[in-house]
Amino acid sequence: MPMSTALPPDIEDLRLRTREFIRGTVMPAEPRPGAVVPEELLAELRSAAKAAGVYAPHAPKEYGGQGVPLQYWSPIFQEAGYSLIGPSALNCMAPDEGNMHMLHLIGSEEQKRRYLVPLVAGEARSCFGMTEPHPGAGSDPAALASRAEKVDGGWRINGHKRFTSGANNAAFCIAMVRTDAVDGAPAGATMLLVDMDTPGVRIGEQLHTMDRAIGGGHPHVHFEDVFVPDDAVLGTPGEGFRYAQVRLGPARLTHCMRWLGLARRSLDIALDRTNRREIFGSVMNELGLAQEMIAQSVIDIETSDAIITKTAALLETDAKAGSALSSVAKTHTSEAVYRVIDRSLQLCGGDGVTDRLPLAAYLNEVRAFRIYDGSNETHKWAIARRASARRRREAEHGAPDLADVSAPIDAAAFPADAKA
Amino acid sequence: MPMSTALPPDIEDLRLRTREFIRGTVMPAEPRPGAVVPEELLAELRSAAKAAGVYAPHAPKEYGGQGVPLQYWSPIFQEAGYSLIGPSALNCMAPDEGNMHMLHLIGSEEQKRRYLVPLVAGEARSCFGMTEPHPGAGSDPAALASRAEKVDGGWRINGHKRFTSGANNAAFCIAMVRTDAVDGAPAGATMLLVDMDTPGVRIGEQLHTMDRAIGGGHPHVHFEDVFVPDDAVLGTPGEGFRYAQVRLGPARLTHCMRWLGLARRSLDIALDRTNRREIFGSVMNELGLAQEMIAQSVIDIETSDAIITKTAALLETDAKAGSALSSVAKTHTSEAVYRVIDRSLQLCGGDGVTDRLPLAAYLNEVRAFRIYDGSNETHKWAIARRASARRRREAEHGAPDLADVSAPIDAAAFPADAKA
Amino acid sequence: MPMSTALPPDIEDLRLRTREFIRGTVMPAEPRPGAVVPEELLAELRSAAKAAGVYAPHAPKEYGGQGVPLQYWSPIFQEAGYSLIGPSALNCMAPDEGNMHMLHLIGSEEQKRRYLVPLVAGEARSCFGMTEPHPGAGSDPAALASRAEKVDGGWRINGHKRFTSGANNAAFCIAMVRTDAVDGAPAGATMLLVDMDTPGVRIGEQLHTMDRAIGGGHPHVHFEDVFVPDDAVLGTPGEGFRYAQVRLGPARLTHCMRWLGLARRSLDIALDRTNRREIFGSVMNELGLAQEMIAQSVIDIETSDAIITKTAALLETDAKAGSALSSVAKTHTSEAVYRVIDRSLQLCGGDGVTDRLPLAAYLNEVRAFRIYDGSNETHKWAIARRASARRRREAEHGAPDLADVSAPIDAAAFPADAKA
Amino acid sequence: MPMSTALPPDIEDLRLRTREFIRGTVMPAEPRPGAVVPEELLAELRSAAKAAGVYAPHAPKEYGGQGVPLQYWSPIFQEAGYSLIGPSALNCMAPDEGNMHMLHLIGSEEQKRRYLVPLVAGEARSCFGMTEPHPGAGSDPAALASRAEKVDGGWRINGHKRFTSGANNAAFCIAMVRTDAVDGAPAGATMLLVDMDTPGVRIGEQLHTMDRAIGGGHPHVHFEDVFVPDDAVLGTPGEGFRYAQVRLGPARLTHCMRWLGLARRSLDIALDRTNRREIFGSVMNELGLAQEMIAQSVIDIETSDAIITKTAALLETDAKAGSALSSVAKTHTSEAVYRVIDRSLQLCGGDGVTDRLPLAAYLNEVRAFRIYDGSNETHKWAIARRASARRRREAEHGAPDLADVSAPIDAAAFPADAKA
Repeated sequence: MPMSTALPPDIEDLRLRTREFIRGTVMPAEPRPGAVVPEELLAELRSAAKAAGVYAPHAPKEYGGQGVPLQYWSPIFQEAGYSLIGPSALNCMAPDEGNMHMLHLIGSEEQKRRYLVPLVAGEARSCFGMTEPHPGAGSDPAALASRAEKVDGGWRINGHKRFTSGANNAAFCIAMVRTDAVDGAPAGATMLLVDMDTPGVRIGEQLHTMDRAIGGGHPHVHFEDVFVPDDAVLGTPGEGFRYAQVRLGPARLTHCMRWLGLARRSLDIALDRTNRREIFGSVMNELGLAQEMIAQSVIDIETSDAIITKTAALLETDAKAGSALSSVAKTHTSEAVYRVIDRSLQLCGGDGVTDRLPLAAYLNEVRAFRIYDGSNETHKWAIARRASARRRREAEHGAPDLADVSAPIDAAAFPADAKA
Repeated sequence: MPMSTALPPDIEDLRLRTREFIRGTVMPAEPRPGAVVPEELLAELRSAAKAAGVYAPHAPKEYGGQGVPLQYWSPIFQEAGYSLIGPSALNCMAPDEGNMHMLHLIGSEEQKRRYLVPLVAGEARSCFGMTEPHPGAGSDPAALASRAEKVDGGWRINGHKRFTSGANNAAFCIAMVRTDAVDGAPAGATMLLVDMDTPGVRIGEQLHTMDRAIGGGHPHVHFEDVFVPDDAVLGTPGEGFRYAQVRLGPARLTHCMRWLGLARRSLDIALDRTNRREIFGSVMNELGLAQEMIAQSVIDIETSDAIITKTAALLETDAKAGSALSSVAKTHTSEAVYRVIDRSLQLCGGDGVTDRLPLAAYLNEVRAFRIYDGSNETHKWAIARRASARRRREAEHGAPDLADVSAPIDAAAFPADAKA
Repeated sequence: MPMSTALPPDIEDLRLRTREFIRGTVMPAEPRPGAVVPEELLAELRSAAKAAGVYAPHAPKEYGGQGVPLQYWSPIFQEAGYSLIGPSALNCMAPDEGNMHMLHLIGSEEQKRRYLVPLVAGEARSCFGMTEPHPGAGSDPAALASRAEKVDGGWRINGHKRFTSGANNAAFCIAMVRTDAVDGAPAGATMLLVDMDTPGVRIGEQLHTMDRAIGGGHPHVHFEDVFVPDDAVLGTPGEGFRYAQVRLGPARLTHCMRWLGLARRSLDIALDRTNRREIFGSVMNELGLAQEMIAQSVIDIETSDAIITKTAALLETDAKAGSALSSVAKTHTSEAVYRVIDRSLQLCGGDGVTDRLPLAAYLNEVRAFRIYDGSNETHKWAIARRASARRRREAEHGAPDLADVSAPIDAAAFPADAKA
Repeated sequence: MPMSTALPPDIEDLRLRTREFIRGTVMPAEPRPGAVVPEELLAELRSAAKAAGVYAPHAPKEYGGQGVPLQYWSPIFQEAGYSLIGPSALNCMAPDEGNMHMLHLIGSEEQKRRYLVPLVAGEARSCFGMTEPHPGAGSDPAALASRAEKVDGGWRINGHKRFTSGANNAAFCIAMVRTDAVDGAPAGATMLLVDMDTPGVRIGEQLHTMDRAIGGGHPHVHFEDVFVPDDAVLGTPGEGFRYAQVRLGPARLTHCMRWLGLARRSLDIALDRTNRREIFGSVMNELGLAQEMIAQSVIDIETSDAIITKTAALLETDAKAGSALSSVAKTHTSEAVYRVIDRSLQLCGGDGVTDRLPLAAYLNEVRAFRIYDGSNETHKWAIARRASARRRREAEHGAPDLADVSAPIDAAAFPADAKA
């Protein structure tokens, strides 16, 4: 996996050690495709990762992580994602990784102590309560229907979440709820830290999905008159939608990074196959139909890597622009990763559809990613609207109408006219 | 045109001034699509560009350029390419721009004085004699058939080139010829600087192509017993193929940069249309079929920008890896740019196919780019072979066979099996 | 060109004679790509076509045509379209061919005598006045703005048409205008036969477009107080929109047929190239990247042929369903034909972009077809709406909601769940 | 599901009754996606199908089928395929359906009595032993490695098959083996009817695949000194490869028909979703990003239907040409069906990836079809080779070289040249 941009020496060193750890320690321990990782195995791998100094690359050093800046997460996360269980082994998997990021940026010291420390340590898991049953918050967050009412000393939550990834195993949930204006805070959305064993929190129906990599499933979660104290507010009341952007931009980008690692793995599987397999008297990699697929996969991987790198850098210098660009990165990468795995499966022929190779399982994993984190269609809709608005602003600042066809023209531009 | 990565202040300043120059000075002077730029107009624009301090951004300052490092050419060249005649106005158009780059890196001081100085100043033009009629050098450079024979005090050239872009107006040609081993130099390819008025140099048949932006056409050039002195050798005899890489990697990348600027222009034309036009009772930009096309174009532009940026940075730190990645950048960008212009034309409906808008002309310009600078199929072939070779090396260094299906397995992984 | 469905013997015989005529007589007379066909040449070719018994295949025998039923036009028109000037040579080119079809179906005997007879004979040309400047009739016919007012003994027309293909050479125009309810006829659109030399008819601005194959250009046409007598009404007043469907369904299908012939020609050019050209030590047709492109082109051609055949048969048994399916045929074929020519050009490398081969010219011809006859986006919009409406009707007739996710489920369907 | 071509009344009647049976009887009995159909349920459904007069549409009437000619299988099989278990319920599922077809065409009366009668009746199942472990017969049938040796009174088989679809439940196998020339029969491949309980026949390792619809799995089958009598030869010894074409052309086409029915079901699921669901203030079917996906799916379905119809008709009039065209039909339809289901899943958002809807299961079913029955790449390779050979024959019969660029030309064809 040639990482083509020059990284700072310490990052490059961590990348190489992560690579070594994933390939030498994690991959030999991988369960069969589609199987759930046993808890004991996961605990062992995390211990080994800590010992190898590759654990929680994104988390601050003071909490036990490697303290890598967001700008350099991509090469590390791609190495982790080369194994489907690599990110869990390094504790940089969704949804915990995104919750760590948000707690680090927005949480109070007490909240960090209570929630962030065990989360980084791997002693607790978490979930993020955002999506709701139709017609609540889904692709359109403004439809948020779960509510918290200000009561004496805290808040009373009533609501219904679904697709709450990781909730089955979680110690706490960061719940997004609608709140009225109160005590000077505006009406809007508020994020509340809710211990999952609080009375009134109930895991509902399990959603069985085609992907498997996120431990803890995607169940419904019900909040029925759940009381949380005032200090359960993450950040400031009414700022939830703004905070959500803090989480969602990087979170969808880290998904891209991890899945891109899996795309590299899939291409390598296909290359191992085509390098060794002969068909119609040629080594398969010499057959052009294979070369077309291999080349397109390399192009998909390299362009995804480049747009992720660009977006990660931008997120650190201009969070709003970075979040907007993350729509491009997510849409492109999720489609590209899917294509790479699909082609790799195709290159492996009949073996590709069996469980002797993990490609069918990978394909199911990443298919969902084109819908999760905002469906690609929702992102494209946002991308188009931003482009139109950008150009409208330029017009307001004096840009001429480049599509104006009203001006008379004096002579023909195309050949037959010139000769007629 | 939001340049999303943070640029150093002086580069950002040059970019903004280039943008202003292109939009304020060059675009109002644009001839009709498909028309040739009159020489007087070009001279005026170049004077204005010098006055505005935006002339020859890539050329060294001591020769009259702006001295921008390769790593930062992309944002500047994209601004230039927003007008089809912008790169010529700034004297950063092919083939002169690539020849300047090579003369700067390889030429002797005397060669720089004699060829590079007037080239940068816009007092002379040049061409690069590489492609030959079939079965000579084309996609496969190893088929080089033109030859130079060592004679007393110099070399005698005999050969036949075609697609010699810019040759009609050129003062000199950098001719790629096959040479025998001589005086300790290896047999191989040698680059020779040939004044176009040397006896025996003859412009042959003109190739009429669908693109127009390169002044000086793409004619055949014949070398018939052409004598050049010893100091006409660029660099060292026998090193021509290696030098060609020095030229071709950046040259195909600058093409990407310029055409990406034109893609941005095309998208803006379409946005101006869809922002103002109503159809079926809606403003067009609100219609999803338009939004799909707009979003895909933004994704094409942003991923092209990202892979160009990555490749340019890599070319400065690792020329060989950068040259390899330039195959990815060229293939992706040339396809992406074509798609963007094609969609923009489609969004403009019937007006798009007329010469009231420049999109049909742009489409013809960039169509050829999917073939020039190595056809995309040749690049994909090279990309696939490099990927296979990379993985073969990893296998030799102990990577396990990820496609091995021979190991027995003990249980079923897929659902029906689990339940059967 | 293997026509794979069994044709009746007389049709197959005409197809073979048409093929022979096009390849033996028309192709040797083809002008250079992009050039206009001289009138004398066209007259000669038409005489030869009459002599060969292949003239006007679609026109009724009593008017001098071959009387082929619509169901079998496709194989004949494809043979004609193998040459860009073939359809004109056989007088089965747009817009005359569509106007013949409509005059034959709707015209009075007197109208047939006066307009259809010379049109089939090649003594007169025609145009169809439908499209108007924005915001008039374009993709949305309901926006029709040109009007005819009932006056004593006839109608007075005022209006402005654009993209009136063929108008420069036309003897008459079938003009689509808005009319009020009159004499029992409903308000709506009416078709009027207008001699082009009627006072008040004026050819306006010429639109210069990237396509060339339609003689007579695409000019604006102005109607300024133009009087036409009562018998100028084609069919019945107020029925114009219905008649337009009579014309447009088959007309867009015959475009598909002709262009599909050109796609076959383009593929043959590429096959001649790849069968003879060696590169990288192989005959090109053995290189997989070429094989991929060739195979995709065959698939594009065969699927286009199949959907055209199906639509043509349907148009004869169920005009409304046939017209709806013609949206599918037009969209698929126009995209497919463009891809075939684009790939063929690519397979010819540098020669493909020069005028030594006609592929660049062909590409410009067919590019416009993705916009003409209803842009593909307009057709897709209609296709989607029809599909939604069809399913809504099925729901009203008792079809269960297949997307219902509200029912409780009792057990897990996916593997990990089964094992959890 | 509008069947757009006019069918003979008795076929149309059977289609409508099949449709009614599938929707009224089979769909309400469908097990959860991915689950295996219980044998009792299958037996019940087949009894009901017999009672409804829709059982075994493709099988001859004298054996209990409906006797529909191949030309009209498509509309019936598409109705059956609207339910994933529909084809099994009607006993027209692979591999039995293809084996019935071959036994009917090639089998002796005694073989028909013994094997075809119970197969049609649903009292026995079968498998087809063709594919072998690498490097045996796979994409390249010529690599066939299993052998039968002529012995007294019969043949002794030794070989190893894999991907033997349906073998777990089969009463007999049609085994493809290599045989030497014997008794005037040529050396080559021979088909042998082997009862699965014959000594030496052994089911080996089970292949667990991502598809589920074929009952009886895809296990390895070993033949170890298996003796079969002389009358076990299907047809004539040495003709196996030719017979295989008899089976494979129609068999891959019936797969297309069945899966196309499932694609229609998937689109209907998505339409039910988009017709009822509101998002961003609109009914989803009015949102253009949805319309784009719906329209593309309709185009995919209609073009697949058309190419299947064309191929089925051709198979009856020209088996060789029909078999060649079946490569086009298989490649196009398998890609098209996959895209339709993929888009439908995407249109259903988060619900699409859960088992509340069957789309994720469908996607896994049809993914394998792009590899089964000859991978699409193998078909594309064959399609390209046939196209090249066809054109080479035309050249040998005098067709001029359309790619010849050697002739001199006298004037410029493109605009700038004309004006230069």
